[in-house]
This record gives sequence, structure tokens and C-alpha cells, in this order.
Amino acid sequence: MEDIKQKYEHAVIATDVVIFRAEENDLQVLLIKMKKKPFFDMWATPGGLVKGDESIDIAAKRNLFDKTGVKNVYLEQLYAFGEVDRDPFGRVVSVAYFALLPQGIKLHLKTTEEHGDVGWFSVDGLPVLAYDHKKIIEMALNRLRAKLAYTNIVYSLLPDEFTLTDLQKIYELILDKRQDKRNFRKKILSLKMIKKTGGKTTGGAYRPAELYKFIKKNPEIVQIL
Amino acid sequence: MEDIKQKYEHAVIATDVVIFRAEENDLQVLLIKMKKKPFFDMWATPGGLVKGDESIDIAAKRNLFDKTGVKNVYLEQLYAFGEVDRDPFGRVVSVAYFALLPQGIKLHLKTTEEHGDVGWFSVDGLPVLAYDHKKIIEMALNRLRAKLAYTNIVYSLLPDEFTLTDLQKIYELILDKRQDKRNFRKKILSLKMIKKTGGKTTGGAYRPAELYKFIKKNPEIVQIL
Repeated sequence: MEDIKQKYEHAVIATDVVIFRAEENDLQVLLIKMKKKPFFDMWATPGGLVKGDESIDIAAKRNLFDKTGVKNVYLEQLYAFGEVDRDPFGRVVSVAYFALLPQGIKLHLKTTEEHGDVGWFSVDGLPVLAYDHKKIIEMALNRLRAKLAYTNIVYSLLPDEFTLTDLQKIYELILDKRQDKRNFRKKILSLKMIKKTGGKTTGGAYRPAELYKFIKKNPEIVQIL
Repeated sequence: MEDIKQKYEHAVIATDVVIFRAEENDLQVLLIKMKKKPFFDMWATPGGLVKGDESIDIAAKRNLFDKTGVKNVYLEQLYAFGEVDRDPFGRVVSVAYFALLPQGIKLHLKTTEEHGDVGWFSVDGLPVLAYDHKKIIEMALNRLRAKLAYTNIVYSLLPDEFTLTDLQKIYELILDKRQDKRNFRKKILSLKMIKKTGGKTTGGAYRPAELYKFIKKNPEIVQIL
């Protein structure tokens, strides 16, 4: 490897995870506040370096778990960001992922030595971001929007049981576009992805609505919109 | 970086490019024959290390150009393969891409110090492959198959002018599934992606067929199948 070491620079490998949730009538991402210069007090997506004895995919899962206390949620590799000067400390390649959290999931948000604060931000009102994280979040958002149209992965943003209105709202929120209620329901039901649980919503100001659940919770290509 | 260097292993970053073409009534990938142990005489996807002064995306383009003499073809990042022990020489992360070559494109296939032979293989008859390249090619093939159904990227496998039969053949070849001629044509024409050039095929044993071209050659999400 002597030759390789001289000719080719080694890089540190990091993972960044863009964590999405659809709550409070908003599509939100989880950001952490940096403590180190030159990004002091700037927000960033949760990230961390890959250890010598772990694969990148495992490092991304660990990163997600360390920051939020959750595992077994939807996690997809987004892109390897490899611009030469993306990190002022040297050559750091970030393999970015995005995660989708179901509504109502319990989180244990943790701060670390390297970041002091953590919070949810609407994708429509992001603060100034460290590194190339603006680009990373934009790419994740584009991927999520595209995949919502041609896959079934919306299941990973919903709780186990939900109403058709809940489902439609997520589409409207993320695609930032009203859906015709009648056509949307007709299309969704024709795809045989969800079925009635037999239960109905209770309480609240609205009349009870049928509860549904997904028949399968595996990512599949399905033309939804 | 002292701390980081101790705690986190540095990696060499490589790119591998799965190069597809649809020729000779076959979907083929370009492979090179390795000269170095332990993979001596085994086939591999064209790859190379990322230099210190180039981004990963640029390195992938250079890798493609060095091996084939082509640029400005469809090239998409596939996945960062980061298993700890995927390379016997140490921690090498491979950021894999796939490229699509149009039918009839002129190539200048080159051998290098590190590989002695180069050749096209049907995806249905791949030889034993070095590293994790079997997995990389399988993932590229799955991505290509999926994208053929919900995007317009088939344009990148066709020459500038083609017949509807040429277009249908590529779909049948890659998806390994016969398409109903009437429905396929109706669907393709309804999408307004292609238009007649005004020309027709000449010669050959068949009667002249209308020639078409793509109106736009940018990747877009379009439900084709």
C-alpha cells in the first residue's frame, strides 16, 4: 500500500442522517447545534465518524440510535458526498442517509460533547447550516418527495393505525400540494396496500373515522400519484 | 485531527463503475481482468482510487473515461459500499456508479498496468467476480430495472434515432419480459417523450419503420410501465 498512500489521499468516513418526521402539520428535520469552530453555534444534521471496525451502514444506524434512541425505522442511503474541501479539517467523505420516523414515536434525544442543543425544524424554515448540509437536506427532500409518488414508503411516517385523512395530510404536507380527496382515496384504496383495522377514531370534534393499517411494511415500487 | 486519527481509521476511497450497454440483443456489462493477487485473473468492474484533489463524482467520470474513452453519458451514483473487510489490502470504501452507453457509441477500451484484458459480458452470464463486485452489479441491475419503469432514462441506452421496435426491445431485454406491442406503443406515445424525426429505416429485410427521437434528454420521473 506504500504507493497508494503516496498517490492517493486517505479520507475519514463520516455518516450524516437527515431525520424526517411529519408532526404538528409540518415536515420536520432534526438538527443539532455545533460546538466546534468554524461552525460554532450553527446547526447541522446528526453525524459521526465511521469506526474502524464497523461498516458504513452500521455506523449510520449507530449514529441514528445515539442521537434519537430509535432503531428499526426506515433508513436509506442517500449519497456519498465527496467534494475535496467540504470539511475544513481535512478530507472527510460523508455518506448521507435519510431516516423516516413514524408519528408518535418516542424519542430520547441526546446531546453529546460535540453538540449542545438539538431541535426539530420545519423544512420550510431551516436555519443556516454547517458544512454542505443544506445540499444534503435538499437532496434528501427531493428523494423523499419523489419516492412518495412511486413507492409505498409513506408507511414509515405513519403510526400503526391511521385514518385516510392522516394519510392524505402527509402527502399534502410533503408534496406541498392539495390532493383531491375523492381521487386520492380511490387511488390509495385501489392499490390494496392498506386495510381497515375494524376500529374507529374516538373523541375529538370530528365524527369517528375508519382506522386503517398497512398490509405490508416493506419498501416497494408502487405508482401512487 | 490527532484524536480522530487514533479513534477512527482512515480509508482509501475508490470508485467502481458498472457500465451497461444494450447490444447484440443482450444487456451487457464491461469487465476488466485483474492482474493483482488475490484476484489474479478474475474479472472486476472498472475501478480506481480517488485522488487527493478530486471529488468522488469527478473521479468516477475520470475512471469511466480512462477505461472507455467516453464522457457525457448517463452516470449515476449507486451506493457507497463500506463493509470493513471488502478489500484484502485494507479499508477501501467503494463509491459505486452505473453508466449507460447508447447503442453504437464508439469506445476506446484501454488496458492498464493493473488489468490485462477487458470485455463485455451478458448480465445473464457473468464470470466469477473479484471483491464484492457481484453484489455491486446486482444492485446496479436492480436500480436500472426499477428506473426503466418509472423514469425516462432509457433514452441513454438508445442512439439518437431509433424505431419503436428498438425501444420496445430494450425494455424486453432489460426487464426480461415480453411487452404487448400495442399497449407498449400506446403508453410510450401517450407520454409525449419522443417524436418522429420524419425519417425512416432503410435496407434490411423489414419494411421501412418510422424513426423517433427523444424530445428531452434529461432524467425525469415518468411512469412508463
